[in-house]
Amino acid sequence: MTSDELVEIERIKQLKARYFLLMDQKRWSEWANVFCVDCTIDTTQDDSPLLRGRQAFVDFLPPILEGVKTCHHGHTPIIELSSPTTAVGTWAMEDMLWFPEGSPRRTLWGVGWYYERYRKDPDGEWRILELKLRRIRVEVDGREIFAPSAPERGHH
Amino acid sequence: MTSDELVEIERIKQLKARYFLLMDQKRWSEWANVFCVDCTIDTTQDDSPLLRGRQAFVDFLPPILEGVKTCHHGHTPIIELSSPTTAVGTWAMEDMLWFPEGSPRRTLWGVGWYYERYRKDPDGEWRILELKLRRIRVEVDGREIFAPSAPERGHH
Amino acid sequence: MTSDELVEIERIKQLKARYFLLMDQKRWSEWANVFCVDCTIDTTQDDSPLLRGRQAFVDFLPPILEGVKTCHHGHTPIIELSSPTTAVGTWAMEDMLWFPEGSPRRTLWGVGWYYERYRKDPDGEWRILELKLRRIRVEVDGREIFAPSAPERGHH
Repeated sequence: MTSDELVEIERIKQLKARYFLLMDQKRWSEWANVFCVDCTIDTTQDDSPLLRGRQAFVDFLPPILEGVKTCHHGHTPIIELSSPTTAVGTWAMEDMLWFPEGSPRRTLWGVGWYYERYRKDPDGEWRILELKLRRIRVEVDGREIFAPSAPERGHH
Repeated sequence: MTSDELVEIERIKQLKARYFLLMDQKRWSEWANVFCVDCTIDTTQDDSPLLRGRQAFVDFLPPILEGVKTCHHGHTPIIELSSPTTAVGTWAMEDMLWFPEGSPRRTLWGVGWYYERYRKDPDGEWRILELKLRRIRVEVDGREIFAPSAPERGHH
Repeated sequence: MTSDELVEIERIKQLKARYFLLMDQKRWSEWANVFCVDCTIDTTQDDSPLLRGRQAFVDFLPPILEGVKTCHHGHTPIIELSSPTTAVGTWAMEDMLWFPEGSPRRTLWGVGWYYERYRKDPDGEWRILELKLRRIRVEVDGREIFAPSAPERGHH
């Protein structure tokens, strides 16, 4: 790891920070811009479909979170450059969702990891090329809803 | 962002880390030193007064937290230098307070963001020049006490 | 702090990130490798023995966590090099444990700090030389089990 590589790593950390901030503030058009146009989104652990392409994620997630208050936190990233324009990263995470009055669920809480790939696009901006979320515990209304027998391994 | 700027960003991250550590360990004289003498503190979302000057904050906060156990965590900072001696930053946050026996409240829990400005003072030390806290959810004794309809935007 | 030192600091951050990840994924042989052979582990606050040497910790912790789901998060590190091959660090932390069915305890939750020393070993890898955990609050099954009157100070 060189000083120049460390600058790229910090840029990727700030990219992921914006992912969290813009999602929780529901600034969807800015949020969309943290992803590569040809990204892959794998949050299939909760039976969500595997999504290919930024537009598919934009069509999928914002409507689901409409009216839902969310808080996503990321921790202790391990980010490694695999080339000058590609990188892999692992983030510990926690998320909290509060559903609106009248919903069948009141809260969702989870912890786990994001396993990700990043690409520096021709415009010089790092974006998320692949996002894979694997939670180790999820509680709905305070009760565990699934308990994977073993966490799935990622890049690290 | 250059390697030299990244060093300044790391120093600001450590500054904020000391803010959290020294507050939760109630080391108030060291804690005061993380702020510029002429800082502005805006935690007005919970009807606290807007405070101008470090002394005003030192007079305000430590007496409130006397006897209260606190835990403040900060996450995924986005810190940008605006000049060699000034910077802006956004931190995701979570705080937990446990009030002493006999208090009308037992716990306070919240999540949100710090929107901040920093200045490198003539002694070469970065300090917090402006702190603005905007929480997205606050619970007292496990019940939500206010629900801002939309989070207030900060620097990022 | 120089750019080169910042690279070492990032490597230590990633070391601690692997400590958390590998422990929570129970990848014990990889986890053991984040410690110096001659490390000291002080989690004596909860009456655990003071452990000397990596093997003592490997013999101690993994059997205790067998069958227990764990989530450890680390925050806002303050890491300082004390020489080209030694460093000290402080991390805010939170941990959550879920015990298996039939255990006398169901959950443990805590927050506090890790006070640590690191060494770059002859193979060029940073490892944890000294780990001291001091929590400020611990709850078992949602009830506080001890309340240190004042947090113990560490390096920072």
